[in-house]
Amino acid sequence: MPSSPGAVVVDLKFERREIEAALEKAFPGRAVLQAADKDQDLSHAAYLVAWKPDPNLFRRAPNLKVLFSGGAGVDHFLAMPDLPDLPIVRFVDESLTTRMSEWVVLQCLSHLRQMPVYLKQQRNHHWRELAQPEAKDVTVGIMGLGVLGRDAAVKLKMMGFNVLGWSRTRKDLDGIRTFDASGLPDFLGECDILVGLLPLTDDTRGIFDRHVFASLRQEGALGGPVFVNAGRGGSQVEADLLAALQDGTLRGASLDVFSVEPLPEGSSFWGMENVVITPHAASASDVRALFRHVERQIGHFEDGKRLEHLVDRKAGY
Amino acid sequence: MPSSPGAVVVDLKFERREIEAALEKAFPGRAVLQAADKDQDLSHAAYLVAWKPDPNLFRRAPNLKVLFSGGAGVDHFLAMPDLPDLPIVRFVDESLTTRMSEWVVLQCLSHLRQMPVYLKQQRNHHWRELAQPEAKDVTVGIMGLGVLGRDAAVKLKMMGFNVLGWSRTRKDLDGIRTFDASGLPDFLGECDILVGLLPLTDDTRGIFDRHVFASLRQEGALGGPVFVNAGRGGSQVEADLLAALQDGTLRGASLDVFSVEPLPEGSSFWGMENVVITPHAASASDVRALFRHVERQIGHFEDGKRLEHLVDRKAGY
Repeated sequence: MPSSPGAVVVDLKFERREIEAALEKAFPGRAVLQAADKDQDLSHAAYLVAWKPDPNLFRRAPNLKVLFSGGAGVDHFLAMPDLPDLPIVRFVDESLTTRMSEWVVLQCLSHLRQMPVYLKQQRNHHWRELAQPEAKDVTVGIMGLGVLGRDAAVKLKMMGFNVLGWSRTRKDLDGIRTFDASGLPDFLGECDILVGLLPLTDDTRGIFDRHVFASLRQEGALGGPVFVNAGRGGSQVEADLLAALQDGTLRGASLDVFSVEPLPEGSSFWGMENVVITPHAASASDVRALFRHVERQIGHFEDGKRLEHLVDRKAGY
Repeated sequence: MPSSPGAVVVDLKFERREIEAALEKAFPGRAVLQAADKDQDLSHAAYLVAWKPDPNLFRRAPNLKVLFSGGAGVDHFLAMPDLPDLPIVRFVDESLTTRMSEWVVLQCLSHLRQMPVYLKQQRNHHWRELAQPEAKDVTVGIMGLGVLGRDAAVKLKMMGFNVLGWSRTRKDLDGIRTFDASGLPDFLGECDILVGLLPLTDDTRGIFDRHVFASLRQEGALGGPVFVNAGRGGSQVEADLLAALQDGTLRGASLDVFSVEPLPEGSSFWGMENVVITPHAASASDVRALFRHVERQIGHFEDGKRLEHLVDRKAGY
């Protein structure tokens, strides 16, 4: 017997306890099924909320109508070989955006204000003031001007940085100079800090390579360029990144994402003094906010309105 | 023979080379005398630009008309026993303000985003995501609402923090709840992060003591309160601060100022994992900007206009 209204399957990587607490107030009057319960019959479920779903899921749930990503990225869906041809909705949420901007601004300020050097001096009980450029002497270029990139751009500018933006197709941002695919070399040549906030697509896989690192401004106020990535690890060529950090092409980096996560214990990145590593924690989907967003979109869908934040499968985001 | 127009005496703690480079374009047509040249006759000098001036200076230069502080603080002047009764002008400059806000926002974000813990995990090659409140769950209270405090308040609010302000006499700030001397207990009880941007005066000496630390919100989103000081070291009771950090009354701190600077090599603060130390580098007077500011004020003074940023000796700032 089909559930009515349409049941929701949940396949998320949050802690089970956290999900259950959030479900107490979510989806009133609607059946919620956990994909992790292997005996659960999902055959009549209408909606899927998932992050890196189980590969069997689409066989177990053949009657889905809409797929909701549990995060801002959808590369985990698009990489699935038996992905059904259904609408996919990205997770867009104020909290997700605010947290990402917290992390991006923190990392840019940290490199501007030479925290890796000051923290090393602190370990050596060494009191020494360094020559210090100010934010307006430093240009931050953001690659990826979706909701996250645009919010980070505004906040970096407000902190005093000179900010540039790049996206495949050019986007207009108030008071911020932007570039498109053809303008990449010009854009890179002006960047002291390059911030990656790109989705992982066929176009962006491996985009951050030795050529990009060597194209950044070398004679800038920081004494060398810095790479900050909070998009996807698959966008960076890690052998090139490591070499650029070792040979001084890059002066430093802040990395929240890696091609293999967790970053293996033996990775050379861990021990580099000019590299800040966080464990894919730059932003975090709040599960309660996620369910509110999904509920709102299911409401639109069942009322015959347009779904928001729909993924363009050809573009990959 | 008196210099005409009035000569400027410089007694600053910048590198001599940096001062001389800045002087090439400063004070056109006006004699500039270096107090460091012990044989230099300063008897007819009219203006002093100084940071922690030589105690003999006022005897060597008895005909001064205006004193200009080389930094935002003037406690170094006011502590001098033979300070003449002349107008004292504070250094206020956009660059000084912007840099201070860079540092304050950096430190607040750093504690919010648990960087001390993540950096420790990095040293141990340990990939683990921590539970993460967002900025709006955290209240930052700023003590001192001069130009620096007000700018920091606006920027912290824009980053998403809940921001409160405190000053001896209440000040109105757009969209930010403020308190005055009598409201101190209420203010402290709401603070998860306490930011000190106070001048050093008789009222503020030792103001940050065990009672203040114990009055901060204990059950907040950060798991315990954090103290950030970029005002003056003399405002903090360091025995109390150390004890509060050790017994968990404070969860962490970022300290740019100390009662004795440089911080002695043997100080216990250096080795504390939950403390970030910078060497009185949160803001920095740019000497070119300082000379531009002094020139503008000398212009006002000689045209019979009002000097700006005048110090109220009774208030101490």
